Amino acid sequence: MSEATTVTIEALHAYGVSALVTTGMSESNARTVADKLVLTDSWGTFTHGNKLLGDYIKRLDAGGTDPLGQAQVVNEGPAWAIVDGGNAKGQIGCDLAMRKAIELASEAGVSYVGVRNTSHFGAAGVYPAMAAEANMISIAMANDIPSVCAPGSTQAVMGTNPLAYAVPAGKHPPILLDIATSTVAGGKIFAALQRGESLAPDWVIDSDGKPTTDGTLYPLKAALAPMSGHKGYGMALLHENLAGILTGANISWQVLNWIIDDQTKPTGHGAAFIVINPAAMMPLAKFHERVDRLIDEIHAAPTAEGVERVLVPGEMEWRRRETALAKGIALPPDVVGKLRELDQRLGLKPDWLG
Amino acid sequence: MSEATTVTIEALHAYGVSALVTTGMSESNARTVADKLVLTDSWGTFTHGNKLLGDYIKRLDAGGTDPLGQAQVVNEGPAWAIVDGGNAKGQIGCDLAMRKAIELASEAGVSYVGVRNTSHFGAAGVYPAMAAEANMISIAMANDIPSVCAPGSTQAVMGTNPLAYAVPAGKHPPILLDIATSTVAGGKIFAALQRGESLAPDWVIDSDGKPTTDGTLYPLKAALAPMSGHKGYGMALLHENLAGILTGANISWQVLNWIIDDQTKPTGHGAAFIVINPAAMMPLAKFHERVDRLIDEIHAAPTAEGVERVLVPGEMEWRRRETALAKGIALPPDVVGKLRELDQRLGLKPDWLG
Repeated sequence: MSEATTVTIEALHAYGVSALVTTGMSESNARTVADKLVLTDSWGTFTHGNKLLGDYIKRLDAGGTDPLGQAQVVNEGPAWAIVDGGNAKGQIGCDLAMRKAIELASEAGVSYVGVRNTSHFGAAGVYPAMAAEANMISIAMANDIPSVCAPGSTQAVMGTNPLAYAVPAGKHPPILLDIATSTVAGGKIFAALQRGESLAPDWVIDSDGKPTTDGTLYPLKAALAPMSGHKGYGMALLHENLAGILTGANISWQVLNWIIDDQTKPTGHGAAFIVINPAAMMPLAKFHERVDRLIDEIHAAPTAEGVERVLVPGEMEWRRRETALAKGIALPPDVVGKLRELDQRLGLKPDWLG
Repeated sequence: MSEATTVTIEALHAYGVSALVTTGMSESNARTVADKLVLTDSWGTFTHGNKLLGDYIKRLDAGGTDPLGQAQVVNEGPAWAIVDGGNAKGQIGCDLAMRKAIELASEAGVSYVGVRNTSHFGAAGVYPAMAAEANMISIAMANDIPSVCAPGSTQAVMGTNPLAYAVPAGKHPPILLDIATSTVAGGKIFAALQRGESLAPDWVIDSDGKPTTDGTLYPLKAALAPMSGHKGYGMALLHENLAGILTGANISWQVLNWIIDDQTKPTGHGAAFIVINPAAMMPLAKFHERVDRLIDEIHAAPTAEGVERVLVPGEMEWRRRETALAKGIALPPDVVGKLRELDQRLGLKPDWLG
């Protein structure tokens, strides 16, 4: 369990599809979910990739997330739409929402698509990556059950309510940022715990409002610290408004924790996507040239000792993906452990899982 | 110089207009600029209010910002527009852009309006406040000459590239956040210097890439630290893309520092606004009710010892504005000092300035 297990993208994807269809999910929907999880693992963002597959399936089996759920556009205007996620796996409604947002922005130049009645949507960055492929800029946001303190509070007030965005470039891969509005995402706490590590002192606040390094307190007896105090708290609140309030989703404490709360009940998450089509506003080649020039300028910035060059967000992830495409994904032991645990229930026994 | 000077909103506004028209600016444009500066002071955000008036006028007098400049929409589509700021004071083009964005969003549900060829636009929050009055959600962003390090850099890579947003509520005042993507905005460094205080250790990075508390090094021999490391850097880069690259504005090091660079040259700033019209998507009363419920829930959160209640972004500012409307604005000594310095040149001698 102490070494990475290497698996090809194709094999990992096939496993995800096989595992998800055991819940009754259609192969088409299973492919959508597997696409996102494998993309995430190929970036090296292992906290939000196939590590989650087992817990996703647990909730699908219990009926809290509907394996037969189908997402649909329930309301729309010239440049916006609202998607009802049909209480399906979050990736299904959010994939539809981002496709709809790209379609709307290709006409209107900009679009907003909100999603309600959805569930955990995985890594926020997978949706802007779709828009970047269509040469559009986009922003993804989501709400979640509170797990993050606000300045002055002794318990969670906001979810980790992530933000991700991507900007397509010309010769460079897309700029791609995916961040929680807490100092770190909850997944990092669980990952540290599973690795037997204690937390950094600015990750978690205990129920007296004091920092703690004891990860076992989270999430029941401690909350995450907001990124940069009032700034991260304020951003989380923006995301709550766009992903939760405006979509008709559950808000704040109405959202269920998709891992630990009653497995038979919908979590009621919301998500939101803004897409901007640069080609509506200037020739695409000129836009690409301007983005490339900025990236080149950043790469030329003088660096501190020991730093090869200043990176653009997503640069490391796209580099890891190239390696993954060529040589497979080296899944860390905690991810392999979770997948083995899942396969003890499913008995699919793929060779690579051992 | 050690006590605050209280002035009515009307008197401060009238002084701003009188001062700005001495540059040749039209009274209508002067009113627009004064509106924003006085609103900002009434919130208690003194680093970005009339403290800037003298330096604005210096650049207007030298011609680097055009006192006769007029902003106009130069390109538009169903839900977007690009405004050329005409190298006028930033508030003029950005006020037009936000009005245009509100108009577009009232039809399309969402809009993007970018601004190029503009200059320092003051406090970012004044533009979302306009949309909130029209019962719309909005986000404002801007670029600026680099003054903030990226992780691993020894010099500035990004501007403080601010983000502001507002969400209208029902019984509560709008949620309103206005943040720099650096740990603190440059104005706070200058304000601390003027008060003779040293800096907090996480505000500034010197040219060896090390933290320093010596504010005199900034901005020539030190750069600001990004908020929460790669997160603030990544957000600044998003704002650079939407406010700089997509608008055709100057990018990054092409932007001039509006205070210290050649006073005869345009600064070339860019800005961007996204507006979302909730009333297109759900009955406005329902939207208000949902926002109010979230605010009430936050107000009811348990607080740490000594904290009266958890505040919503903007709550303190709107409370200060109520006091300002009733009793006038108590301008701190550093602001009064800057205004006296300006009036030594202008000789307008308003009673309250002493």
